[in-house]
Amino acid sequence: METILYPPREDWKKLCERSSINLERIEKACREVFDAVEKEGDVAIARYTEMYDGVVIDDFAVSDEEKTACVDKVPEELKRAILTAKSNIEKFHCSQLSVPSPVETSGGVVCRQEIRPIGKVGLYVPGGQAPLFSTVLMLAVPARVAGCGEVVLCTPPMKDGSVNPVVLWTAQQCGVDKIYKVGGTQAIAAMTLGTGTVPAVYKIFGPGNQYVMAAKQLAQRYGVAIDMPAGPSEVLVVADSTARARYVAADMLSQAEHGPDSQSILLTMSETLAREVEKEVERQLDMLPRRDVAAKSLMHSRIVVLDDILQCVDFSNAYAPEHLILSVDNPEEIVGKITDAGSVFMGHYTPESAGDYASGTNHTLPTSAYARSYSGVNMDAFVKKITFQSITREGLEALSQTIMTMAQNECLDAHSRAVSIRLEDNE
Amino acid sequence: METILYPPREDWKKLCERSSINLERIEKACREVFDAVEKEGDVAIARYTEMYDGVVIDDFAVSDEEKTACVDKVPEELKRAILTAKSNIEKFHCSQLSVPSPVETSGGVVCRQEIRPIGKVGLYVPGGQAPLFSTVLMLAVPARVAGCGEVVLCTPPMKDGSVNPVVLWTAQQCGVDKIYKVGGTQAIAAMTLGTGTVPAVYKIFGPGNQYVMAAKQLAQRYGVAIDMPAGPSEVLVVADSTARARYVAADMLSQAEHGPDSQSILLTMSETLAREVEKEVERQLDMLPRRDVAAKSLMHSRIVVLDDILQCVDFSNAYAPEHLILSVDNPEEIVGKITDAGSVFMGHYTPESAGDYASGTNHTLPTSAYARSYSGVNMDAFVKKITFQSITREGLEALSQTIMTMAQNECLDAHSRAVSIRLEDNE
Repeated sequence: METILYPPREDWKKLCERSSINLERIEKACREVFDAVEKEGDVAIARYTEMYDGVVIDDFAVSDEEKTACVDKVPEELKRAILTAKSNIEKFHCSQLSVPSPVETSGGVVCRQEIRPIGKVGLYVPGGQAPLFSTVLMLAVPARVAGCGEVVLCTPPMKDGSVNPVVLWTAQQCGVDKIYKVGGTQAIAAMTLGTGTVPAVYKIFGPGNQYVMAAKQLAQRYGVAIDMPAGPSEVLVVADSTARARYVAADMLSQAEHGPDSQSILLTMSETLAREVEKEVERQLDMLPRRDVAAKSLMHSRIVVLDDILQCVDFSNAYAPEHLILSVDNPEEIVGKITDAGSVFMGHYTPESAGDYASGTNHTLPTSAYARSYSGVNMDAFVKKITFQSITREGLEALSQTIMTMAQNECLDAHSRAVSIRLEDNE
Repeated sequence: METILYPPREDWKKLCERSSINLERIEKACREVFDAVEKEGDVAIARYTEMYDGVVIDDFAVSDEEKTACVDKVPEELKRAILTAKSNIEKFHCSQLSVPSPVETSGGVVCRQEIRPIGKVGLYVPGGQAPLFSTVLMLAVPARVAGCGEVVLCTPPMKDGSVNPVVLWTAQQCGVDKIYKVGGTQAIAAMTLGTGTVPAVYKIFGPGNQYVMAAKQLAQRYGVAIDMPAGPSEVLVVADSTARARYVAADMLSQAEHGPDSQSILLTMSETLAREVEKEVERQLDMLPRRDVAAKSLMHSRIVVLDDILQCVDFSNAYAPEHLILSVDNPEEIVGKITDAGSVFMGHYTPESAGDYASGTNHTLPTSAYARSYSGVNMDAFVKKITFQSITREGLEALSQTIMTMAQNECLDAHSRAVSIRLEDNE
């Protein structure tokens, strides 16, 4: 991990760079899968599952027996933890569902927004070594709070053809009952196009490897919406002299263990802290089971020492981090200056892992500086806001000259006539 | 225009079809423009402007002289109309900017959302025969209400190298001062990549022809967000026996005049009304300056007679119209059943053109059934919602077992340690 002292502003752009991923080269492979799924449906899904997951699956739908059997396979302590997290996530996401009051924009003209859930959503939960049941919570809870009618979940089967029991149990706790043992590109293709078994959806959510990311991009071309583009996970810590090096190092390592592409950045105005964190990272790294992954990630992580806290905030805004930890004495003092970030963790006792699992905020967040234009997953992602308007005859009369003048100047005469024809009648 | 009587439900899917647009075939042309703009910047922009707009432009930035000169070229009546519309659009969009209160999800754990404007946005305003100054209002007003720092507007130059004065005047009224005479694919490429003259932005908004649409899709691959995918405009009218055929026909024609690809659908349970509307459409069509365009659009428009109002709502939801007009006696009675639509116009005196111009709602709406998963442009489109959380030592202690159990079960040990290391100290 490199430490850079007082870099001039013109170097910041370079210091904000992420490892870039070129999805185009794998797009062709994704297209083949989509084409095959479009033509052959479940037959293609079965073929790719055998090819990529190394297992022959007869029925992709998780059976009622499997749904029941998972209950005994999840330790009670983990069940309690998941239900506590679920409750917090529900509380925070429920609070986001407010509709503004109707507005009478001019006499007799009333406009309002109403919220409607997206009818069919697809959730993708990656497999691999670690079962990401927390992702189930982060996607299924808001989908259910929103009231989405059909919630479909795809996750890759394990070598024995089963689905991880914790993922299965968590999904059921969240009210998701359509669960399919399909992973990777073929899962995204199935939820985009629909097969005999897997239903097509209107929007697809969830993380995944580069193939899943490329497949989600491709899904958009078929008219299916996605939560957001994705890249490797990242954290930026802003720390002042009140920060404790051990905590900061632990936060950077909890990011680094995600994957070799992950990035951890520390910004501080304390050279002392910078040196202490360097040492602490080395020390704590040795204790981690995933130290090989973390060590690779640290190779493109960095510590940047800047003049003052305002420079740190400026740098952070330029980086637009997915996770921003404010390990400072008075975080609220700088909150107003933060313009671009996915999720912000304030104070010395607010580690990122709290938000990753259980505090209630969502952990599906914009990476790769997408925080400049995208929000993390929140209730807005599962609903549409439809505008409704109601105009009285008097209201239309009062606004008629405005509408007709504008329409005529845009050479849209029929638009103007739709108003005048209504006012010709004497009622 | 075809009239279909009581089609069985299995035929609905076919009746909901839109004319599809294949953007892939023009994507290659777009890519060439993006590549050229990336390499040559303004030189490439100048070349494409000469090629496609037939005019040589020395400086793409609209000058202060041009900005001042436009004032005298806009009729006073039109100025008044634009300012009235602007005021209504401001009122409705301002009302959408509310932030939910912080939530203490568990003791000592406080989560909240805060809103931040997108720092740099690009607005595209098409040129062509009609100057779309209403599009300027619909995009620039919410951008300014949101507080976006940099608002860039691109619009194609006219043959004499000038920009339409109404577009220019409206942009300035909305506080947009960076205006560039660049159109089509090259405008989207310029705002995506940045050139010596045109700044790069984080999100691009606005309508356009197929080349602009394909270019916006391509912009996403460069990390730039877009408002929504777009297709031909459309209206669906639900009319009961209280509807007046003349008004319904006028509404259908005001959609039809947009372009030959536009689609107008009437759903009604009154065969009498269906026949009357057919006749009225023919009669009113003859009076329109744009009757050739409208006539083409009507060739794939249709009237569908159904059993009752609930069937009409079901059909409408299946179609997911951009604009939905409820020409019925008691529209509020069915509002709750509407699940998928862009913007809804209620009652006999609420023509779509009111919302297109001046009632206050936005006219940038999801077409081609995108209303299933996308909202029309609203304040959410110009901001990010950032989550902030603050946890006390006691709050972390209470939540620690939950976080650590979950982290360990996802094999993310460093995530667990970021919590435990904070609780080791006795303070």
